[in-house]
Amino acid sequence: MPREITGFSNPLIKRVRSLRDKKHRKREGLFLAEGLRILAEAEEAGFLPEMLFYARESADHPIVKRLVTATEEAGGDVIETIPDILHKLSGKENPQTVIGVYPERIVPLRALDRSQADIWIVAQSLRDPGNLGTILRTGDAVGAGGLILVDDCVDPFSVESVRASMGALFTQKIATARWPDFIAWLRSGPGQLIGTSLNTDHDYQAPRYESPAFLLVGNESQGLPPSYEKDCDILVKMPMMGKADSLNAAVATAVMAYELLNQNRRR
Amino acid sequence: MPREITGFSNPLIKRVRSLRDKKHRKREGLFLAEGLRILAEAEEAGFLPEMLFYARESADHPIVKRLVTATEEAGGDVIETIPDILHKLSGKENPQTVIGVYPERIVPLRALDRSQADIWIVAQSLRDPGNLGTILRTGDAVGAGGLILVDDCVDPFSVESVRASMGALFTQKIATARWPDFIAWLRSGPGQLIGTSLNTDHDYQAPRYESPAFLLVGNESQGLPPSYEKDCDILVKMPMMGKADSLNAAVATAVMAYELLNQNRRR
Repeated sequence: MPREITGFSNPLIKRVRSLRDKKHRKREGLFLAEGLRILAEAEEAGFLPEMLFYARESADHPIVKRLVTATEEAGGDVIETIPDILHKLSGKENPQTVIGVYPERIVPLRALDRSQADIWIVAQSLRDPGNLGTILRTGDAVGAGGLILVDDCVDPFSVESVRASMGALFTQKIATARWPDFIAWLRSGPGQLIGTSLNTDHDYQAPRYESPAFLLVGNESQGLPPSYEKDCDILVKMPMMGKADSLNAAVATAVMAYELLNQNRRR
Repeated sequence: MPREITGFSNPLIKRVRSLRDKKHRKREGLFLAEGLRILAEAEEAGFLPEMLFYARESADHPIVKRLVTATEEAGGDVIETIPDILHKLSGKENPQTVIGVYPERIVPLRALDRSQADIWIVAQSLRDPGNLGTILRTGDAVGAGGLILVDDCVDPFSVESVRASMGALFTQKIATARWPDFIAWLRSGPGQLIGTSLNTDHDYQAPRYESPAFLLVGNESQGLPPSYEKDCDILVKMPMMGKADSLNAAVATAVMAYELLNQNRRR
């Protein structure tokens, strides 16, 4: 049976709310995901929350009922609460119907099986959580195997990144690595490292890319460090017809990722 | 000569800060743009601010000097101030070096010359200012003529949208229209209306698109209303290989816009 919490000063509420801060997420190894759509996608991908909060008013919603039953059966903690507390947990104007607390899952590079997907995305020093989540969502869409975060990227488990990922956080594998370790791992097997860069005239549609392709995207304002570009097998750029010299990082990743997918579709 | 304002309670500072609110922007017809890169792009596109704020510490920066001279010559108000005030105006952790106040520019539909570009972007009930700004930036990149905002879209002149546009707000024409007026204008001349939709199996790479192409993107969570989809000449969708059924709105727009650009490049 779900237990009920309606008091703002309840220690569990305070603890869960603290997961909005990176420091507390890293200490607990837990993160927040919000909304029926994302929690349902997580369940489909095989992930149930350690804690599930839902508003009393939505207890009869079929997806809520399903999540409650599944979470209880898996030994999770299910808490019925009030919209104001969901609002406090989520920080959103319109509180979500459900909020789940999940264990963070970062896999080591050596645990990635590169043969499982034709496309892998590699992000370097990405700063914007919305971009990171959007890149995960795009990765899911193009059938990528996962996202490798190089150097100091923003936390993929931030509330904003989880929201932007729309559930892809649960379907895409996430690894972190320093650059030398990534390159050593990459070169230990097949794989073409493709850098998107402003320092080339090589059109992104000209090459016939290899598989698995590792699509490398750099920091939003700096791009890739020159030494990383040298480590790439190929540097390409998207045509830019206007005044600006670059695309948004998540947009550039998507345009390039769909080119890879389209080439694979034509094989 | 620039005048100096260093007091937080100065009425001009309060007035400019109020432009962070939509209500005040609409009352004054003015908006804020921040940062050397965006202000320099605005200048290149022929737009100088009515008011220019810069930090005393950066008075010798060559772009700041150029902007100060040009703004003064154009009769604008140039104000030297302190970083804390720039921080207050921008609301950003790291205050920008320069902040400009510009007149909002919305053009009527009838003022758009559709023959000037092969691609036009149409957004319907877009809610996220970051998406709107990113779509403007992508529009600039693919050489689009402008962005037509249909129904109740988020304000393109919000601080977040201006930031995400990276200056494209100054190079892309922006029009607003209700749907019936847009359709009437569209059908008064050549143009193919292309809807991205989940309600079709028509692959986005299958058609040979016409020019000018009007690329229609719907609301982030609802997509396009069914009656709007019926008004489209063609509905297409991007392949989705994963668990998710849709892309981020700005990403979908970019993938589709680059397909249009690529077809035009091959003509």
